[in-house]
Amino acid sequence: MKLTKQTLQSSTDQVYDTIIVGGGAGGLSAGIYLQRYLLNTLIIDKGKARSFWMQELHNYLGLPPDTPGRSVLRQGKEHFLSLGGDLLDAFVEEVIDEGETLALRVKVGRNQSEYYTFRTKYLIAASGIIDYLPELENMRNVYDYAGYNLHVCLICDGYEMADKKVGVFASSAGNAEVVFPLGWFTDQITLFTQGQFEVNDELRSRITEQGYEIVETPIEQFLGENHQMTGVELTDGQVVELETGLISMGSKYHATYLDKFNLEKKGGNLVTDKMARTSHPRIFAIGDLKVGLNQVVVAAADGALAATQIWRDIRRSGTGKRVDRKVNV
Amino acid sequence: MKLTKQTLQSSTDQVYDTIIVGGGAGGLSAGIYLQRYLLNTLIIDKGKARSFWMQELHNYLGLPPDTPGRSVLRQGKEHFLSLGGDLLDAFVEEVIDEGETLALRVKVGRNQSEYYTFRTKYLIAASGIIDYLPELENMRNVYDYAGYNLHVCLICDGYEMADKKVGVFASSAGNAEVVFPLGWFTDQITLFTQGQFEVNDELRSRITEQGYEIVETPIEQFLGENHQMTGVELTDGQVVELETGLISMGSKYHATYLDKFNLEKKGGNLVTDKMARTSHPRIFAIGDLKVGLNQVVVAAADGALAATQIWRDIRRSGTGKRVDRKVNV
Repeated sequence: MKLTKQTLQSSTDQVYDTIIVGGGAGGLSAGIYLQRYLLNTLIIDKGKARSFWMQELHNYLGLPPDTPGRSVLRQGKEHFLSLGGDLLDAFVEEVIDEGETLALRVKVGRNQSEYYTFRTKYLIAASGIIDYLPELENMRNVYDYAGYNLHVCLICDGYEMADKKVGVFASSAGNAEVVFPLGWFTDQITLFTQGQFEVNDELRSRITEQGYEIVETPIEQFLGENHQMTGVELTDGQVVELETGLISMGSKYHATYLDKFNLEKKGGNLVTDKMARTSHPRIFAIGDLKVGLNQVVVAAADGALAATQIWRDIRRSGTGKRVDRKVNV
Repeated sequence: MKLTKQTLQSSTDQVYDTIIVGGGAGGLSAGIYLQRYLLNTLIIDKGKARSFWMQELHNYLGLPPDTPGRSVLRQGKEHFLSLGGDLLDAFVEEVIDEGETLALRVKVGRNQSEYYTFRTKYLIAASGIIDYLPELENMRNVYDYAGYNLHVCLICDGYEMADKKVGVFASSAGNAEVVFPLGWFTDQITLFTQGQFEVNDELRSRITEQGYEIVETPIEQFLGENHQMTGVELTDGQVVELETGLISMGSKYHATYLDKFNLEKKGGNLVTDKMARTSHPRIFAIGDLKVGLNQVVVAAADGALAATQIWRDIRRSGTGKRVDRKVNV
């Protein structure tokens, strides 16, 4: 059930089999599998998964290629709740290792916040990442196009950019490298650095060799209408026409609650075994937080793997029988 | 496009970037990703994927929990064809390694069959497995219930069997072991050996210790109506009432076309790296054929991984640019 400040008391008195931090594609898939293994599951979700911003999910098997990401999330939440799972809109601030259990300090309510402690045998970190966007004075102007024809994922949306005039908005020499794989899809590429980083001679010559442009003047605003970006206006008043865009400015990882566990990482991502277990035996990581391909279908599969391994762990740690567990529906 | 004997000639004259053997969940997902990477893809499908038999897919994120497996396959085929992929209803008999390419000898047409050779840079083996079913004189009687309440997958359908009287139909002592994880879901288990294998003292005592029954008399027929199995009649006339069933008789692997490659295997399944590549650099394996969890969502994710790695291989092996490739839509 959906927990509220009024109804969550009974949930803080019990120990969950699994608490999932994050109600995106990975977390919901894990929750569906866990509830079907008859394990008590709580998903703590602060809302706005990365897929929430996807206006059209083009590559997810079984869904028409114009399905909005938020439809998948809505269907997944309904599915999870129909199986008797618990869902709480809240923010996880800290996790404490108590040995047999993990205790989560959770902030409930954006205003007049209250703090509660939830306990669980296993934790699945499914809180994902969010893409950094160009910082303009008027962020509304960025949100108007991001997720429409201003993309954040080459693998997801390279196809949509094929043979088009693409602006690439990067924040470092490292993430400007995306122009090269993007070159598979189109020859018409303009890199916008906004003057935020230096393009050294070696990178500059590799880019210009390919016939791509480099613009270093900062952006004043994106131009367009009806969520279709048609170009950018620079701070010097110049206008560059574009047909579509790719933002490559890195990502913020939503996993500060795990910081003090010092879990094994590779380039910011959590390292897991093939069943999505991190270097801590009771903590799993799925979706964009872990090393691997940042795709909705991969996150959903990660959820199935983590849930299955947790079921095996719990089953094997006891008598192999359920005790005091009933089917929820 | 859908290829036929009349239209396939132009397809045998070209070299595909990838040919996928099998049009189930894994193959279709791979095909969708490959076409979106602007790679020419042919799926060769002999029909009737394992998921085709699933009357209700209960655990796939984004779809209502009563979605038939065949709806996912239909949607996936439509999606793949809309991206310009080629699809052929045929059977792959043999694969020959030609170095830079692989040549597939393909039988087209169940009657008046003709043989054609298709060439590809990469091959994805997505031809899956199919479960062995109890062999009764009247197989119609088995098909009436299999995929409804006579299940083949504990992970998929344990939830549906919870707290019910379940018959387990096994064909070896090894696959009879499924009664123990099934014990997580229900205490009311009857193992049917049909006299096909011996239950040694050790296994017998482990089973009876749990309070499960063992029936060794062969089955005459399943009883029930409207695809709901309600019990079995044994060859001695005895009737055992049941509420549901689980078949655990092993699986047939659809991969004889790969036999002479001697790919690395583990217990019948192909071993792959984390991007689904087998021990042959141009052959990938996804879904139930490979080591891992046999789940639709995992197969779909495997398809995304294999397709992405093939794209990287092809891109990096050339100039990084598309040559003579156009967007198909």
